Amino acid sequence: MKEIIEIGKKAKEAAYELAHLETSAKDSILRGVATNLVKATASILEENRKDLENAKEMGLKGAIVDRLTLNEDRIRGIAEGLEQIAGLEDPVGEVLEMKKRPNGLMIGKKRVPLGVVGVIYESRPNVTADVGGLCIKTGNVCVLRGGKEAFNSNMAIVSIFRDVVAGMGYNPDMIQLVTNTTRESANALMKLNEYLDILIPRGGAGLIRAVVQNSTVPVIETGVGNCHVFVDTSADLEMAKDIVVNSKTHRPGVCNAAESLLIHKDIAEKAIPLIGQALLDAGVEVRGDAQVCSLLEDAREATEEDWATEYLDYIISAKVVGSLKEAISHIHTYGSSHSESIVTSDYGNAQFFLDRVDAAAVYVNASTRFTDGFEFGYGAEIGISTQKLHARGPMGLKELTTTKYVIYGSGQIRK
Amino acid sequence: MKEIIEIGKKAKEAAYELAHLETSAKDSILRGVATNLVKATASILEENRKDLENAKEMGLKGAIVDRLTLNEDRIRGIAEGLEQIAGLEDPVGEVLEMKKRPNGLMIGKKRVPLGVVGVIYESRPNVTADVGGLCIKTGNVCVLRGGKEAFNSNMAIVSIFRDVVAGMGYNPDMIQLVTNTTRESANALMKLNEYLDILIPRGGAGLIRAVVQNSTVPVIETGVGNCHVFVDTSADLEMAKDIVVNSKTHRPGVCNAAESLLIHKDIAEKAIPLIGQALLDAGVEVRGDAQVCSLLEDAREATEEDWATEYLDYIISAKVVGSLKEAISHIHTYGSSHSESIVTSDYGNAQFFLDRVDAAAVYVNASTRFTDGFEFGYGAEIGISTQKLHARGPMGLKELTTTKYVIYGSGQIRK
Repeated sequence: MKEIIEIGKKAKEAAYELAHLETSAKDSILRGVATNLVKATASILEENRKDLENAKEMGLKGAIVDRLTLNEDRIRGIAEGLEQIAGLEDPVGEVLEMKKRPNGLMIGKKRVPLGVVGVIYESRPNVTADVGGLCIKTGNVCVLRGGKEAFNSNMAIVSIFRDVVAGMGYNPDMIQLVTNTTRESANALMKLNEYLDILIPRGGAGLIRAVVQNSTVPVIETGVGNCHVFVDTSADLEMAKDIVVNSKTHRPGVCNAAESLLIHKDIAEKAIPLIGQALLDAGVEVRGDAQVCSLLEDAREATEEDWATEYLDYIISAKVVGSLKEAISHIHTYGSSHSESIVTSDYGNAQFFLDRVDAAAVYVNASTRFTDGFEFGYGAEIGISTQKLHARGPMGLKELTTTKYVIYGSGQIRK
Repeated sequence: MKEIIEIGKKAKEAAYELAHLETSAKDSILRGVATNLVKATASILEENRKDLENAKEMGLKGAIVDRLTLNEDRIRGIAEGLEQIAGLEDPVGEVLEMKKRPNGLMIGKKRVPLGVVGVIYESRPNVTADVGGLCIKTGNVCVLRGGKEAFNSNMAIVSIFRDVVAGMGYNPDMIQLVTNTTRESANALMKLNEYLDILIPRGGAGLIRAVVQNSTVPVIETGVGNCHVFVDTSADLEMAKDIVVNSKTHRPGVCNAAESLLIHKDIAEKAIPLIGQALLDAGVEVRGDAQVCSLLEDAREATEEDWATEYLDYIISAKVVGSLKEAISHIHTYGSSHSESIVTSDYGNAQFFLDRVDAAAVYVNASTRFTDGFEFGYGAEIGISTQKLHARGPMGLKELTTTKYVIYGSGQIRK
């Protein structure tokens, strides 16, 4: 596809320039964009209105329309996000380790930008600014392929980035929006190995699966979270109740929300009525196994399918397990290796759970909702990786870099 | 494909056991295998002879047959390699960083095994033992898909691994050889996302390309090296001569050998006859641009294709460039981002080259041949990554691990 190849070429060209920009220049761009976004609020909202009208015509539903919607507050929030990124430490250029070999070679490992980052995403126009800001800060050129439902809003935001970059005398192709929003353009990006160093899908499970299945460009898989809270025999039940309710209801539509509750059989009789009722009171539908249903009147019966479901809604599955090991086995069978939590006061069980559960983030006595770049102290987040290669868990600025070896010699040849 | 899915299931099961083996147990396995390999020399050589006879019937040529051939020395070498791996530090379990967040959460990043590592490779039976050893040391289950030309040798080696593991009471499926060596089994591995965490192709450019193009499992791309040595105006020409000849001829068939020589125009008249003659004397065919040919009688004229060719042979392309920037631009146009070296005595040019050249390893005044896990001090190597995700350059034990976040809480919920 011609447009995509042209974009790739331009991106590659711009990458060499951006990779070597001083931190101060990159921060000036981010602050300039933040200022101009706020100044251009009226025209951005006008473009956003076009998208919202089209969305109505397309018959799009509540949550999507909400994610698509911009307003003064949200634009100010986007600008503040860029200011925050400008205030973070620049990871590029750091030498992680340097050692002297017996032959005198000095071998260092230096952090450098990845190069060209492609992102395929849906609905939310704020992703455009977030990704643009994170990529510029880390010296990466970005190629943005947003959804057609947000095209006008995305274009308005990208234009502001490009104008600021060009106004400072740099190559505006550091940030490019793909104007073709058909499936073909997404597919072409997935095969653009010559120009893209990495491709990140951000959106629903369907989008992520399609990119993982079809991309020959290295992909970072993000997002799907079937997270569990396991309440152990020795748990402080009040703490367990608070953690379960928070994990489930603090924001049910996101990937680090709990979807399943596991309870040790030895405390089932006390724990299920207490925690179950708290969930019901918070408006959560509880889908339990036979024992849960017998102890909680308003629970409905769970099916096999429930254990594997990421509801992203006010629904939770609940099951009694015979042991810590059974809990872990259940988590490995049905979980998505995102965030898993145990509530316990037993030291050995806490350590065993931390050690044995294979997931991006494993918690003792805390809500699964903390798996987040900001909560982890990274100041920013480009996504939460649920795969094992390159990055796992919340990805901040460092995860948008790679390394290269720099070797200082004095004439060494290999014997 | 049924065999592959069965292997995947067994691998996944074994992975949880292997991930939590103590270092001492893993090292005992490696030392046991080393001992038994040497003891079984006669029977391994018998199996190897079957492969060599089949190879003759298949009409395979010199280099492949050489790589396929085992003898007492090579088997002893393989065993010593395993002993060495046993002596290395176990990377698994290290907590890379741990910090306390304002809410009291202690968030640590812990090194853990990847899980199940698939490797598709050709000819060399020593890869079987190398990969097996590196994976066991790092707590990873491996699924080995060797070429059919080495099947009997690979099977003999894997059987020794499995017997030692089983003899110590562990699950032998920690290491499995795919017995189906058709293209279908390789293709099935490339789609085995449910069970494989990573797939590494080791072999020729064709194999690597096929895996990168077809795999939905995350791939680490290894190997192709079109490496350059650039001789700057201020170079010590004797040093330059030694580095160029060493980079080219120390072992021409490997990926870190130099394939192209770039010379600054201001020293062309002195450098080309000196370095060119040394290359010719070492039996290297020099394919030069017009100026190289005019200064070196026995050079033949290079075509455009030569600049992009990885010869893996006693051939080098040679070109005069007008500036350091032109040299870097040439490297970025034709290189494969593997290993690049500048010979210079100018501080600024050295730093500029290190900074600007985008490659896995960038050298000042040293041979490109040093890009190697052993030379870098890792004690072992599973391959040399030429991509940017997860690992770049020589991959040792650490590159066979990922991380997970372990979070110690005391009841924290998200506000």
